[in-house]
Amino acid sequence: MKTVAIFGVGLIGGSFALALRKAGFQGSILGVSSPETIQRALQLGVIDKGATLEEAGGSADLIYLAQPICRIISLLPELNHCVKPNALITDAGSTKSTIVEQARDVVHRCQFLGGHPMAGKESRGVEAADANLFRGRRYILTPQSQVEMQAPRVQEFLAWLERLGAETVILTPQEHDRAVAYTSHLPQLSSTGLAALLHGHASALKVSGPALLDMTRLALSPFETWGDIFATNKPAILEALRGYIHLLQEFAETLDSPEIAESFHRGALVARRLRDDRSGKSL
Amino acid sequence: MKTVAIFGVGLIGGSFALALRKAGFQGSILGVSSPETIQRALQLGVIDKGATLEEAGGSADLIYLAQPICRIISLLPELNHCVKPNALITDAGSTKSTIVEQARDVVHRCQFLGGHPMAGKESRGVEAADANLFRGRRYILTPQSQVEMQAPRVQEFLAWLERLGAETVILTPQEHDRAVAYTSHLPQLSSTGLAALLHGHASALKVSGPALLDMTRLALSPFETWGDIFATNKPAILEALRGYIHLLQEFAETLDSPEIAESFHRGALVARRLRDDRSGKSL
Repeated sequence: MKTVAIFGVGLIGGSFALALRKAGFQGSILGVSSPETIQRALQLGVIDKGATLEEAGGSADLIYLAQPICRIISLLPELNHCVKPNALITDAGSTKSTIVEQARDVVHRCQFLGGHPMAGKESRGVEAADANLFRGRRYILTPQSQVEMQAPRVQEFLAWLERLGAETVILTPQEHDRAVAYTSHLPQLSSTGLAALLHGHASALKVSGPALLDMTRLALSPFETWGDIFATNKPAILEALRGYIHLLQEFAETLDSPEIAESFHRGALVARRLRDDRSGKSL
Repeated sequence: MKTVAIFGVGLIGGSFALALRKAGFQGSILGVSSPETIQRALQLGVIDKGATLEEAGGSADLIYLAQPICRIISLLPELNHCVKPNALITDAGSTKSTIVEQARDVVHRCQFLGGHPMAGKESRGVEAADANLFRGRRYILTPQSQVEMQAPRVQEFLAWLERLGAETVILTPQEHDRAVAYTSHLPQLSSTGLAALLHGHASALKVSGPALLDMTRLALSPFETWGDIFATNKPAILEALRGYIHLLQEFAETLDSPEIAESFHRGALVARRLRDDRSGKSL
């Protein structure tokens, strides 16, 4: 691939551009974003050139969509009009079913592959872009069939992800969305809930230690990104949230009985497994 | 003070000993713990000498109780028999009302001052002891009256806490217990609940990022320390837990409505305030 177009040059889009360059990509990197963002991205050396949707769509071999979910959904029909037939469109949206369905319905002139890098930061925007953001992180891909993965453009994209240090994982869009409901969307609601509850108990804040800092880091995340996620993954999030509420109700009923020790034991097992897994041991 | 006795030479007790020494304490530090712990603490240079309850109680100017809450409660009557009249007994238990009530009832031969350092680590035991554990951390003290704080032995203890880098905060035992229900005990249940829920959804673990690691760190904490906390702070914990469940139920009902944005806004305010506060700005 010679030309890559990044749509939405924020934390993820900007980091993808920087990471590509660091991994040795010699081609041209175009950016499609607001004029202010493009100016900043040019100053920071994140992209080579700003472009319109049509310019970028018409010249790119890889189109990387790193915008809010609903913007990706509305952009796909427009992109389909201008893409090159051998191009690959991929995205970094946090939910996959709705985006992949839309792509199946409206992207006919080139290939589409849904993706979701499991990487992030509290800070946002192109200023926070980081060439190492994907290093050591999982990168979920959600093809509609295994055959798609064999296409040369996809193989080339996979090779770049490997050079970026990401570990690719293949899931169906539905598997992805149900999993992130438990591992990302519920933890966000859990953290926001804890912090929001404390809004009514401000005097308690002076008696807090590192535990509360850990548990409220996600609560710093602005709602902006979450509205689209809740709108496009509601059934899975409600399933996870209701399971969580049920377990917390059990905690309230068994707080001074030995039963709660079992939940602590199971919780500690999972927490250790998550950490062992990240240090390279098998699940 | 010339002699300090640490009862329970684990993470907190051992760190207090190391921190005292680092801050320039020249006297003798006795340890009262299991034979294995005493041996390890001596090897690590954390204490000067192991001692029996009677030896330590009979010679110490400061008695520092860093055992599980229920052990502290059962120890206080025994200690009262052997303490020096000018000694100060203080403790590091995570709940205060029950301990302070017991001290009021059974400690007559010397002064008692309840305490709770807001410091910790996942790792436990004397091996994890750290001379800097209290540095920059709040250290709650729960006197029964302001007059107590003027006693010379208490003033001396406060001066050492300052040298250790801790920031002392004075609260009533009830204020303390209600605050930690929200800032420590509820976050623990929230983290354990998230991790325990994932025990039934292990396949989701492969789609997890840094968010879930943050939110499950507390779940690594063994139940051992929590049984006593739940037993001695049940009403406040249930109030906090029920408030949290109620808020999560609201999230489920308003997931795709604009209302939930308000909770995100309030949560982000609290999360920022916690961080601003720690960096020295006023609450």
